Amino acid sequence: MILDETPLFDPGLLKELDWSENTVQFSPPISPSQPGEGLLLRPLCPADLNRGLFKVLSQLTKAGDVTPELFIKTFDHMKRTGDYYVTVVEDTNLGQIVATATLILEHKFIHSCATRGRIEEVVVSDECRGKQLGKLLVSAMTLLSKKLDCYKITLECLPKNVAFYEKFSYSSSAETYMQHRFFD
Amino acid sequence: MILDETPLFDPGLLKELDWSENTVQFSPPISPSQPGEGLLLRPLCPADLNRGLFKVLSQLTKAGDVTPELFIKTFDHMKRTGDYYVTVVEDTNLGQIVATATLILEHKFIHSCATRGRIEEVVVSDECRGKQLGKLLVSAMTLLSKKLDCYKITLECLPKNVAFYEKFSYSSSAETYMQHRFFD
Repeated sequence: MILDETPLFDPGLLKELDWSENTVQFSPPISPSQPGEGLLLRPLCPADLNRGLFKVLSQLTKAGDVTPELFIKTFDHMKRTGDYYVTVVEDTNLGQIVATATLILEHKFIHSCATRGRIEEVVVSDECRGKQLGKLLVSAMTLLSKKLDCYKITLECLPKNVAFYEKFSYSSSAETYMQHRFFD
Repeated sequence: MILDETPLFDPGLLKELDWSENTVQFSPPISPSQPGEGLLLRPLCPADLNRGLFKVLSQLTKAGDVTPELFIKTFDHMKRTGDYYVTVVEDTNLGQIVATATLILEHKFIHSCATRGRIEEVVVSDECRGKQLGKLLVSAMTLLSKKLDCYKITLECLPKNVAFYEKFSYSSSAETYMQHRFFD
């Protein structure tokens, strides 16, 4: 099982984002192409399994243990669909993933066969707080969804994070988010 | 452009649902295999474009106009991913779609590369209210998500519909649903 550097999606998509459309203030000014000293923002690749991807995800929720085979199976499915934009920030000095966020495209028949975006799994490693990486990732995923012609983009967040997302022009919906959990 | 009867997903999946796990009362007792006199519950197929699919969807939201080419492009993408379970109820006497609901699978790295389900586009034609078709579809999509090993299933609904979904063991989440709309 080779865990190589194949990107999940075209890295050019992140480089070509129109950052002038970003609505959030960054101080110091960082961007997808210049995320900070020793940091690199890029698509997920299989080798990230050995760069602490699950350690970062476990700061968000139960990440669990996965074999390389299972990881690659999921990665390959995501890549095949073309609808998963799992993005990571790597600390290139340590060779470790320090933050991640995912944009997922969902295809519809409504709105003339439109596409919507969903933001999922936004997490920044405890050691990397204060580097604006959450803001950078959410802004990048939002702009990416627009570039990919989504008619809207949505997310679910804890009430304490509502103000954070409002900075990116998200607003609380009148709709209620409901769930039914089968197992953890 | 041939709009044929190719099912979006394996029709056997609906037939094989364990209906004894259904938690909702139906009176009279209907089920996915016996949805009511002259009605058929089955996967979407391309020919449904000419059976009023968009007329039903337009009762939910802006459905828009689509060419057969655009419809098939979206259908084929959904089918290729294997993650879209757009289910319809057809009035076989009229040859018209009278209700629809969709289960979408979303793949994750968290929870040991788990899958979650999302219920989308639940709509019953005005003329077919009172036939328990909304209940039937939501129960079927929920049981299907369990059969397909989802660890949880979620949806967004208007507050007035919360009590309806609670019957299927959904509960309102502490999380807030937020959206950012680019265009209608």
